[in-house]
Amino acid sequence: MLHCLIIGAAGMLGDGLAKRLVKDGEIGGRKIGRLMLFDIVPAQAPHVEEISVTVEAGDISAVETAEQLVASRPDVIFHLAAIVSGEAERDFEKGYRINLDGTRNLFEAIRKANEEDGYCPRVVFTSSLAVFGSPLPDVIGDDHIITPHSSYGTQKAIGELLLADYSRRGFFDGIGIRLPTICIRPGKPNAAASSFYSGILREPLAGLPAILPVDTSMRHWFASPRAAIGFMAHAAAVSSELLAGRRNMTMPGVSATVADEIEALRAIAGDAAVALIRHEKDPAIEAILSTWPQAFEADRALKLGFEADESFEAIVRAYLEDYATDAEQA
Amino acid sequence: MLHCLIIGAAGMLGDGLAKRLVKDGEIGGRKIGRLMLFDIVPAQAPHVEEISVTVEAGDISAVETAEQLVASRPDVIFHLAAIVSGEAERDFEKGYRINLDGTRNLFEAIRKANEEDGYCPRVVFTSSLAVFGSPLPDVIGDDHIITPHSSYGTQKAIGELLLADYSRRGFFDGIGIRLPTICIRPGKPNAAASSFYSGILREPLAGLPAILPVDTSMRHWFASPRAAIGFMAHAAAVSSELLAGRRNMTMPGVSATVADEIEALRAIAGDAAVALIRHEKDPAIEAILSTWPQAFEADRALKLGFEADESFEAIVRAYLEDYATDAEQA
Repeated sequence: MLHCLIIGAAGMLGDGLAKRLVKDGEIGGRKIGRLMLFDIVPAQAPHVEEISVTVEAGDISAVETAEQLVASRPDVIFHLAAIVSGEAERDFEKGYRINLDGTRNLFEAIRKANEEDGYCPRVVFTSSLAVFGSPLPDVIGDDHIITPHSSYGTQKAIGELLLADYSRRGFFDGIGIRLPTICIRPGKPNAAASSFYSGILREPLAGLPAILPVDTSMRHWFASPRAAIGFMAHAAAVSSELLAGRRNMTMPGVSATVADEIEALRAIAGDAAVALIRHEKDPAIEAILSTWPQAFEADRALKLGFEADESFEAIVRAYLEDYATDAEQA
Repeated sequence: MLHCLIIGAAGMLGDGLAKRLVKDGEIGGRKIGRLMLFDIVPAQAPHVEEISVTVEAGDISAVETAEQLVASRPDVIFHLAAIVSGEAERDFEKGYRINLDGTRNLFEAIRKANEEDGYCPRVVFTSSLAVFGSPLPDVIGDDHIITPHSSYGTQKAIGELLLADYSRRGFFDGIGIRLPTICIRPGKPNAAASSFYSGILREPLAGLPAILPVDTSMRHWFASPRAAIGFMAHAAAVSSELLAGRRNMTMPGVSATVADEIEALRAIAGDAAVALIRHEKDPAIEAILSTWPQAFEADRALKLGFEADESFEAIVRAYLEDYATDAEQA
């Protein structure tokens, strides 16, 4: 029976992953017997009879915390915990403490356990498109250089390098997956520059107005929460031999312009929903987003069986199926 | 008057850089008034009247050491210190302590000084071709992904990422230069897999036999110690604006096969010298070196004025001019 640990289980993706693992009941044909949910605040435990679910809270940047998490020898560790990009940029020390030292502490705790008793878990690390920085080609290949233009992206890129080296040395069996921008993100608008990518769909779908601060020709790389959770679950089961020593990769996604988003909204919710989007240019936001990636090949991930959403319309439908009821209840 | 600090001053390149700075007497038109030489063991101070040279020894992986080095506010810091690749592979903890924590401690000490009084030195960081790992194209462009296959290469790649982020945040003005394999390395053969690249020239030039463990078609990327020292001196003076936010780059070099090396030796020292090379295949060494880079474009470095050796013959002549007398005296 597999023992799984989710670090960062209280966030939207961590919560979704916990629910998905409970629903699947297995990873790669092996039954899940135990699930530990960890975050800085207690995560919500899904109700299930067959799996023993425990909830722990603590600070991943403390060495002892990482050692305690590893003490029960989880077979699969999902490491999603991170200070988000805006906060890592505002608070330099905190970003490095959580995103770099926290990750390194976890990897070091596993290495020490490996030296003690040969412990060697699968580690799934969620990285980010923020590892890429301009100048970028229109379509970014799997061999494109990593040049982050943010402290968050730097910390994720360092996490990828550590994951690859610790895996090469045999301390654990790691896989790093760069998630596309999540869309439609459920909940409320936030201060992120990219918040409108979800907002111009989520708000009109709920009958509310939304502001579009960029030109409709702006193109970016997206995955639904459902697809992103699917990437994590699939990453837990990918055979290490197939990775051929390359442990980190960009996940497949849907490359779409804002115009594509709007047409998907129109197809599903009609002209009245589209009419709720107010065009109000914000040159600051446009300047930030113009340096972001537009599209990827993601050939390695596709060959390994990672599956993107089928279209932008599929992204909108996944939101309505997975979250719209929650949203109405909230 | 400039105050310069060389960290790793007791090594072959650090020693050569100190001599070069003393000989030049200036960096980018600004006179050098003070030169501090730091290493784990005391470096040899060049004799000079115009510049105040001090020698310090200590452990760069201690936080206090980094703070003490920064206390005198050097205008230019050359950070060359590292555990070499073989040792970093054998001793995992030591490699990370010196090559990662040592570098981060230095950068953190500068950041804290920057917060205190706006201190913002030029930092020249020597990185390595070891940041690249197979599969590699025959000619590697400036935008090729970094996938180290050694702990040393991982530590250098992380140093590059930190350098770029600390520079972007304005804590210092950094430049990271990936040095080609140094050839002809003066001194004795060592245990490195690449030792023969120098040995098959250095030994025959001194009338001694040498073993060639790989096929003569093996191709790699080289710079003389003179060129490498020139890269460091030039890096100290490159304008930050010209870097355009990309702080790390591969240095230009000479792409040569072992056959090219042998022909250069023949042109300079004749058939008798070439006859001292004994071909004795070592499949283990051949396997390692077959995954190493063969050639680079290095366009960014060339545009910034970094100058490679003119040919492999020039590399051999530079050795005879710069080191052959030393070698005979040793």
